[in-house]
Amino acid sequence: MDRYVLTLHCPDQPGIIRAFAEGVVQAQGNIVDNMQYTDPETGSFSMRTEFDSPLGDLDLVRAVLETALAAYDAVITLRLQTQRRRALIMVSKTDHCLLDLLYRWENGELPVDIPVVVSNHDDLRPIVERHGLTFVHLPVTAATKAAAEARLLALVEEHAIDFVVLARYMQVLSDNLCSQLPGRIINIHHSFLPGFKGAKPYHQAHARGVKLIGATAHYVTADLDEGPIIEQDVVRVTHTYTAQQLVAHGRDVERLVLSRAVRRHAEDRVLMVGVRTIVFD
Amino acid sequence: MDRYVLTLHCPDQPGIIRAFAEGVVQAQGNIVDNMQYTDPETGSFSMRTEFDSPLGDLDLVRAVLETALAAYDAVITLRLQTQRRRALIMVSKTDHCLLDLLYRWENGELPVDIPVVVSNHDDLRPIVERHGLTFVHLPVTAATKAAAEARLLALVEEHAIDFVVLARYMQVLSDNLCSQLPGRIINIHHSFLPGFKGAKPYHQAHARGVKLIGATAHYVTADLDEGPIIEQDVVRVTHTYTAQQLVAHGRDVERLVLSRAVRRHAEDRVLMVGVRTIVFD
Amino acid sequence: MDRYVLTLHCPDQPGIIRAFAEGVVQAQGNIVDNMQYTDPETGSFSMRTEFDSPLGDLDLVRAVLETALAAYDAVITLRLQTQRRRALIMVSKTDHCLLDLLYRWENGELPVDIPVVVSNHDDLRPIVERHGLTFVHLPVTAATKAAAEARLLALVEEHAIDFVVLARYMQVLSDNLCSQLPGRIINIHHSFLPGFKGAKPYHQAHARGVKLIGATAHYVTADLDEGPIIEQDVVRVTHTYTAQQLVAHGRDVERLVLSRAVRRHAEDRVLMVGVRTIVFD
Amino acid sequence: MDRYVLTLHCPDQPGIIRAFAEGVVQAQGNIVDNMQYTDPETGSFSMRTEFDSPLGDLDLVRAVLETALAAYDAVITLRLQTQRRRALIMVSKTDHCLLDLLYRWENGELPVDIPVVVSNHDDLRPIVERHGLTFVHLPVTAATKAAAEARLLALVEEHAIDFVVLARYMQVLSDNLCSQLPGRIINIHHSFLPGFKGAKPYHQAHARGVKLIGATAHYVTADLDEGPIIEQDVVRVTHTYTAQQLVAHGRDVERLVLSRAVRRHAEDRVLMVGVRTIVFD
Repeated sequence: MDRYVLTLHCPDQPGIIRAFAEGVVQAQGNIVDNMQYTDPETGSFSMRTEFDSPLGDLDLVRAVLETALAAYDAVITLRLQTQRRRALIMVSKTDHCLLDLLYRWENGELPVDIPVVVSNHDDLRPIVERHGLTFVHLPVTAATKAAAEARLLALVEEHAIDFVVLARYMQVLSDNLCSQLPGRIINIHHSFLPGFKGAKPYHQAHARGVKLIGATAHYVTADLDEGPIIEQDVVRVTHTYTAQQLVAHGRDVERLVLSRAVRRHAEDRVLMVGVRTIVFD
Repeated sequence: MDRYVLTLHCPDQPGIIRAFAEGVVQAQGNIVDNMQYTDPETGSFSMRTEFDSPLGDLDLVRAVLETALAAYDAVITLRLQTQRRRALIMVSKTDHCLLDLLYRWENGELPVDIPVVVSNHDDLRPIVERHGLTFVHLPVTAATKAAAEARLLALVEEHAIDFVVLARYMQVLSDNLCSQLPGRIINIHHSFLPGFKGAKPYHQAHARGVKLIGATAHYVTADLDEGPIIEQDVVRVTHTYTAQQLVAHGRDVERLVLSRAVRRHAEDRVLMVGVRTIVFD
Repeated sequence: MDRYVLTLHCPDQPGIIRAFAEGVVQAQGNIVDNMQYTDPETGSFSMRTEFDSPLGDLDLVRAVLETALAAYDAVITLRLQTQRRRALIMVSKTDHCLLDLLYRWENGELPVDIPVVVSNHDDLRPIVERHGLTFVHLPVTAATKAAAEARLLALVEEHAIDFVVLARYMQVLSDNLCSQLPGRIINIHHSFLPGFKGAKPYHQAHARGVKLIGATAHYVTADLDEGPIIEQDVVRVTHTYTAQQLVAHGRDVERLVLSRAVRRHAEDRVLMVGVRTIVFD
Repeated sequence: MDRYVLTLHCPDQPGIIRAFAEGVVQAQGNIVDNMQYTDPETGSFSMRTEFDSPLGDLDLVRAVLETALAAYDAVITLRLQTQRRRALIMVSKTDHCLLDLLYRWENGELPVDIPVVVSNHDDLRPIVERHGLTFVHLPVTAATKAAAEARLLALVEEHAIDFVVLARYMQVLSDNLCSQLPGRIINIHHSFLPGFKGAKPYHQAHARGVKLIGATAHYVTADLDEGPIIEQDVVRVTHTYTAQQLVAHGRDVERLVLSRAVRRHAEDRVLMVGVRTIVFD
């Protein structure tokens, strides 16, 4: 028996689950976990399912399900649970998110393969190579940005990358690049109540005496400052904390939030619906 | 179109979802929300579904689904979403949980009917009657306990009560009573890390300098100190808080946790599996 | 022995604490709780102290301390702990914050007197009067706004009000009014990560799929959208929550955050320093 | 000007703060941060102060303060803020707490020196040595336990260790050892609501369906299962988490709670009063 993970996305209409369940039966399968949500505003149907099947052939199982669902205009992803999602991690000079991801990857918490880590600086190469991973230094200037992004897309292609993780990568990606990887780029961003625009946000937060420091992990889109939100959390601070200590607490919440978002994405638990996400946790 | 809420519980085996989905199609229905979980340890299948159907007859819809699921030895609950669960609330002298439940009931947050509030003291009668609800004073002594519990069961019967909420009810229910209402009595209990046995737990917590005050909402069972856990939360405290202030913070977390548990139970989001719960939130 | 609560605010310089402690000794007093913070950016010294003294005369104790601190250009507040701060609560039609404040006031958690509750609508009169408190209906239109604010200030004067609590009061106060009560008006505001401008913020938050709903209690100032922050908190939500359920969870966090802010202010635990607060909790 | 950090602990009586402040003035000092708490149950006075002084000689400043406080039977600790507390870290085979401490130490968040890391196993040597620190392998068997503890005490002596951190050290320390380092050993412990006794607590927590996973950092004492609590926190989990995933979430909360406790201890923010702590944060 193999365990399969499926996501399914389509306009809502009666009969989808029956058709899907019929497909699973035809694949001699048994559904072990199933979560479904119909968004009342967009009328879209989203589903995540884990099922077991003895057929032993991913393409065959997929064909059976696609036949069963032929009438529903469904976007399907299907993989063996043992076939891990492939992540390309991007970093600049800051290491807390990278270290956290690598730690969880190494101890088995984070079910991903990491074929390559890309950075516009060379600083974090030792950390990456110490973990036995490939590091690619890809400097970016205004003049080379287009070429650098083309090289990045080539790496995505070459390594059969499923998704890109911006683990405190400090370059803005072009709209063109974002459009080519929809729902496949995850970013982490500090967040405050209220929000602060401009430079040195932690210093602004300190000056205003905020009591909570937050972080948001979201998909990157071409036209939104912050795309569909995957995960958020906060940590409590007091007036005695210096701006430097706020930054340190920000690191704690950023790395936790990003790692949770990456794990959920890697387990196919996050589906994008317009500017929202459905998180089947 | 009517919206139905169904829960389904049975030993896991292939084909359940197909059979269920087939039943929904036969009821001309459309599934709008579906969450399912198969417990790997007990091999039990649990599901909660909301679906729309135009049949216009609860008994007919139930019959259609029962026929479709005849092979699966399934325990099913089915109701129209507009048909609210009926709760009997029990209190003693403490009012914070009662007030919170009544507030949410009054503003529509808590989808329950409350046919009767029962108390072993008469103190909270004015609050209950101010909300236009029936208050029954049911004193309990060692001598009258059996009779009082018989009266309680009669009230449950008479008012077609779905579940009982112990909103800081300070009498211990007999094992006999608990056995007659399995998974139908919800209690709220303070909780600490570490736990404290014996009297005046908040004073013990204060003496030990705990940094968190917690509460647990759980089902009441005959043989467990704390039955299957529905919801838990904590609130942060410091060394400057007096035992009295710890009690006040305990009230805050108790009422929030109990109200969340009651809402989830009332929406059929909580299924008991052995000594655990599955919470489809 | 009487317990006194003092706050002290002045430019930082050596010797303040010695001078103050000398004053307490002259008042035959004993300091039981003392918290002090020197803000490195503004160079301001802030302190909150509880001390016992047998002198039995507030004015005498104050005179002793003022003499001791004559050299330091200090702003001092001093009260007997048993002399409760007097709060004027303002509401419109929404009752969750009002009910929470009154509940805590009634059970002794909230050490304030509430001489009067003011509203621009008459809806919440029954709640207020049921608690035995005075309700003043003070309608506000564009034409009557100046007169209404003058009446409000007269009520503040007449009832010797220490501070005003905007418990979901939906009128904007004029800059003129704010300037007359600096650090004496507390407001509660929903907060999101990221922030949302414009109408129906909970609906916007729902549309963007936020995972946290927050609230901020702050002092009202003439020139800041949100003045110095006193307290903040968040509650976790999921994609299954309707906008209506987000609003309900917003109520939970709003009432908790406002009540905590009011309690801390009433206990003289919050000092304003520029656009920040020092919270001695 | 040098910044000094002082803690002071003595039976409460009038005049302590004046005497102390007088001492600071004699040391030509200025108090910049001061927190004090008198425990109503034990009548003990606890204080933490940061002050600046130009005297330039720690022993001289100490002598001035001791003279000023001669009448009060006070236990004083005094250090230059730049003189970091010295921590000996003990580990076994689990690395998450160690890695977190070393990461924060390396980036400057954690103001400690770490002269030596001691382990009863050799597994974590590479991590320690990669950070340029000394690793001592100190195996413990029933037969060698006394000798191993003697060696540990010798290391504490030799390296002028201020405090010991048990970062998932899986050996129980003898009562004898604990008695020799009162308030100087910090341990981290998983915590649940309710508590679970015996082996495999995370598996028990999973079987009971807990909704929160917690951790407690505490001082180790000879006669308490869990000594005075320094810090606690929890993380939310659901029924879908496997026991293995509960363990992973336990790691997250353990490392955060331990690191916070170590930082506060290293900054002299934690004072033990009987079986409680005062945490000046």
